Amino acid sequence: MGVIVQKYGGSSVADVECMRRVAQRILKTRDAGNQVVVVVSAMGDTTDDLIDLAKKINPEPNEREMDALMATGEQISSAILTMALHQLGADAVSLTGPQAGIFTDSVHTKAKIRALKPKRLLAQLKKNRVVVVAGFQGLNPEEDIATLGRGGSDTTAVALAAAIKADRCQILKDVEGVYTANPRVVPEAKKLDEIAYDEMLELASMGAEVLQSRAVEFAKNHNVVLEVMSSFVEKPGTLVREEVRNMEDIVVRGVASDKNQAKVTVRGLEDKPGVAGLMFTELARKSINVDMIVQNVSDKGETDITFTVPRGDLAKTVRTVEGMQSDLGAKDIVANEDIAKISIVGVGMRSHSGVAARMFEALAKHKINISMIATSEIKISVVIAKADADKAVQVLHRVFELGKKK
Amino acid sequence: MGVIVQKYGGSSVADVECMRRVAQRILKTRDAGNQVVVVVSAMGDTTDDLIDLAKKINPEPNEREMDALMATGEQISSAILTMALHQLGADAVSLTGPQAGIFTDSVHTKAKIRALKPKRLLAQLKKNRVVVVAGFQGLNPEEDIATLGRGGSDTTAVALAAAIKADRCQILKDVEGVYTANPRVVPEAKKLDEIAYDEMLELASMGAEVLQSRAVEFAKNHNVVLEVMSSFVEKPGTLVREEVRNMEDIVVRGVASDKNQAKVTVRGLEDKPGVAGLMFTELARKSINVDMIVQNVSDKGETDITFTVPRGDLAKTVRTVEGMQSDLGAKDIVANEDIAKISIVGVGMRSHSGVAARMFEALAKHKINISMIATSEIKISVVIAKADADKAVQVLHRVFELGKKK
Repeated sequence: MGVIVQKYGGSSVADVECMRRVAQRILKTRDAGNQVVVVVSAMGDTTDDLIDLAKKINPEPNEREMDALMATGEQISSAILTMALHQLGADAVSLTGPQAGIFTDSVHTKAKIRALKPKRLLAQLKKNRVVVVAGFQGLNPEEDIATLGRGGSDTTAVALAAAIKADRCQILKDVEGVYTANPRVVPEAKKLDEIAYDEMLELASMGAEVLQSRAVEFAKNHNVVLEVMSSFVEKPGTLVREEVRNMEDIVVRGVASDKNQAKVTVRGLEDKPGVAGLMFTELARKSINVDMIVQNVSDKGETDITFTVPRGDLAKTVRTVEGMQSDLGAKDIVANEDIAKISIVGVGMRSHSGVAARMFEALAKHKINISMIATSEIKISVVIAKADADKAVQVLHRVFELGKKK
Repeated sequence: MGVIVQKYGGSSVADVECMRRVAQRILKTRDAGNQVVVVVSAMGDTTDDLIDLAKKINPEPNEREMDALMATGEQISSAILTMALHQLGADAVSLTGPQAGIFTDSVHTKAKIRALKPKRLLAQLKKNRVVVVAGFQGLNPEEDIATLGRGGSDTTAVALAAAIKADRCQILKDVEGVYTANPRVVPEAKKLDEIAYDEMLELASMGAEVLQSRAVEFAKNHNVVLEVMSSFVEKPGTLVREEVRNMEDIVVRGVASDKNQAKVTVRGLEDKPGVAGLMFTELARKSINVDMIVQNVSDKGETDITFTVPRGDLAKTVRTVEGMQSDLGAKDIVANEDIAKISIVGVGMRSHSGVAARMFEALAKHKINISMIATSEIKISVVIAKADADKAVQVLHRVFELGKKK
């Protein structure tokens, strides 16, 4: 008996049949004695279709109008899902983001949630109705609709769960939970029963693609217990929650690989203060998200800097650095797209030593060459050749015994 | 130099090409020195597609949810049209019905406009922006979106024109104006330069299908000058306005035919008070819109009543009357779908006599049999066989010299 927020993504509500299945799933949760708030994404490809339509009319559509346009996708799916619940005899009502009391800042197409006033939602819950909220949207200070950007529906769900003090926020997806590694790469990968927010954040930002970082951060800040679970199979998923003591017993929670990175090396830089700062400031100004940075200093007054960026930003990055080449006093610029970033993540690393050594040793034993290293308190990442990525994940999964029953 | 409200229907904004053409048309009106408010319907078949989707999920969808669903159609077209205006370099902004300050009553799917608070719209106009309003919708007292029912976008345009005291409300359609008769039936039919509200109301309720009665009534009540004109050809349309003195010089303004009527005769009714009342009260309770009624009294204490209803309601009407047959003491019930209602309309009838006689004579001369007659101050309607409908319209158009240059 509790209050549960369930979020269904676009592929879970892609068509009429899917809608019916989701409606049944919702009612099972309700019939188990829960009050249920549902957050729903746009049906299937609706959002992409709307973007295509807009770009045909105007290659650079105004962002306020894009938000007005895109928000309709979730409004359609919330109304349709509510009708599906009615068809099954349930009392249900749809609310748009603004009606659900979601207030955002003024940044169109990637607004942040600023306030929640879920009075209307709570009143409907009190009437024992299933409340179906259009995800991904809210009302901004100008009283315009604003969308929350990628993963916005996850964020809607977590924010509402926090605001109404829900017992759990379930994110229903086409996977059964968070795994120790990508099961397509590591067949013996195990579904995790639980994972700490910080671990999930490291994995999310690492291309594990299960949850959006923003949603996890929101959950962490408001202590919302998340559950990532399958929308098709009914069984427990993975709980994402505050770190509890015994979580540190496990040194490595999971292995992730990110093949969407590219590496840039700027060679023969003048080794004087401010040169690196100049370059990275300019890249930041162009919204290029630099991830790992390594600098080698030579004794000739020269230095090499290597850094990674998302692959989609590589061309822009190279153009930017080339444009500054004389200012930087750089000899040349080398780009490499054939790389992958492999990371191991676990809060247990804080209290266990020798994890990095074990990782490097294992990779070396399999002749996998490491070109960059970055570490945080609970994560070790290495850059290797893309061709070695899957092998590296398999090796590390085995070495840290992630496939073993605990 | 003035304030103009323009309304574009679904076929005028059916696709990207249409949208571009409409955007150009809007800018011509603005560049002529006007402030322009645009009211737009959903693109092409969008509304029908949304209804189909809803019915697949739930054959009897909840009306509040239907409104939430259907309102997205106009929200999409208003955003897209605004982007098209931007693409042409114009300053423009879209508003939903609620944002434009349209407040309705609580009747979902056929809400009536109760109040207009166009503060936000006026503020945008003041910034010299073209304001594109999503038609067909408003906010109800429950703060839910409500749609205005058939012809709702025309009503939105007229209501906004009234609220902001626009100089003119232009309804852009795929016809060039209001004609003396349907040009497909009468090739020499003439486009009218002007027509009085009351004449337009009689024609609208008579299947002329150019303007919705509700919009004309609203225009009449608020003295909004309407102009029905082509969205494709740029030339003056038909002004729909208050009656002015010389309008009475023309006896008959137009001829209309309505083939969507059916006739029901209830024979051998007991001729006693209350019998007819009983029957029509029950039909009204079932929302069947009875139009013409004729009663013949015989000398045997019996009577026959004949009345017309919309053809789509015929089966329900017959079922209803059959269900009351013993209460009514009726002998039998005869239905006839092969009828048409032909009407001549003109405010000049008030001051000219002999119009009905000329009409009946002309029809008789062409062997067209009249089975029912109904008149108002500015209209004479007759029911004839459907097969004779087009001939009757042609005959009356000629007799009253409607094709002549005035």
